[in-house]
Amino acid sequence: MKLVIAVIQDKDSGKLLENLVDEGFKTTKLASTGGFLKSGNTTVLIGVEDHQTSEVVEIIKKVCKSREKMVTTMSPIGGSVESYVPYPVEVVVGGATIFVIDVDQFERV
Amino acid sequence: MKLVIAVIQDKDSGKLLENLVDEGFKTTKLASTGGFLKSGNTTVLIGVEDHQTSEVVEIIKKVCKSREKMVTTMSPIGGSVESYVPYPVEVVVGGATIFVIDVDQFERV
Amino acid sequence: MKLVIAVIQDKDSGKLLENLVDEGFKTTKLASTGGFLKSGNTTVLIGVEDHQTSEVVEIIKKVCKSREKMVTTMSPIGGSVESYVPYPVEVVVGGATIFVIDVDQFERV
Ligand code: NI
Ligand code: NI
Ligand code: NI
Repeated sequence: MKLVIAVIQDKDSGKLLENLVDEGFKTTKLASTGGFLKSGNTTVLIGVEDHQTSEVVEIIKKVCKSREKMVTTMSPIGGSVESYVPYPVEVVVGGATIFVIDVDQFERV
Repeated sequence: MKLVIAVIQDKDSGKLLENLVDEGFKTTKLASTGGFLKSGNTTVLIGVEDHQTSEVVEIIKKVCKSREKMVTTMSPIGGSVESYVPYPVEVVVGGATIFVIDVDQFERV
Repeated sequence: MKLVIAVIQDKDSGKLLENLVDEGFKTTKLASTGGFLKSGNTTVLIGVEDHQTSEVVEIIKKVCKSREKMVTTMSPIGGSVESYVPYPVEVVVGGATIFVIDVDQFERV
């Protein structure tokens, strides 16, 4: 058995858990904050058979991969606080830090 | 040293911590939710000497073992929302997922 | 890679994270309570290269070391609830429980 500990962004956690459950994996979500990634993190524990490790890591990578996203923001023009125009900005979202740890003994009761 | 990570039901956590403390074990409770078990989970960390691992695992199994329990529920009879009768239903409560992990280095300061 | 899991007192967590970030370490804070130390704990996860383990452990020891502290308390004198005098008391604060665990596989995406 391996224990996969993944620190991901909150906003990716719903989709990640859905993808993992669809493939039959059991997960536990821990509340967590800041650090490895920007604030608003979730730590997820997933217990897997050794041969399933790469499948779980691939699912996390696919769902949580750090990617650029265009968001529309509003900004004052020419210093005047009265003239705002919407304009697109590229931000980086997502990202995951994944630790795979060997499990000596595993029990479900 | 081993680190025992146990994901248990919230409602079993008070009794489990009491049993572990009685036997001299030190524990840390992490907030957690859903996944391995039904929602309302607690994750407990317990650092133990190698030879104490089976004692801790046995305590967790004894306290948190998944078991059937009769609960009384109310339900409409014959489709009429006005005629409810209390009746007993068997539900499964408890359960634990336990990971035992080898610890390279342990320090208490 | 190693995963350092440190259970520390809440009041030491700001200073610890600052010291770790200053040295370039990435951390995740988990909410936790009671057990290893008095209530009001924080669990911190730090992923490190093998050769950095002792540096991280030393930082945790330095910041979180259990130490005596004088606090001023008020107490009734001679049983009369009307005569309080401030007087100094020595209390133990801080402390940390540190687990270093070997990581099979580490990914950042
Ligand atoms: Ni294994
Ligand atoms: Ni050991
Ligand atoms: Ni290593």
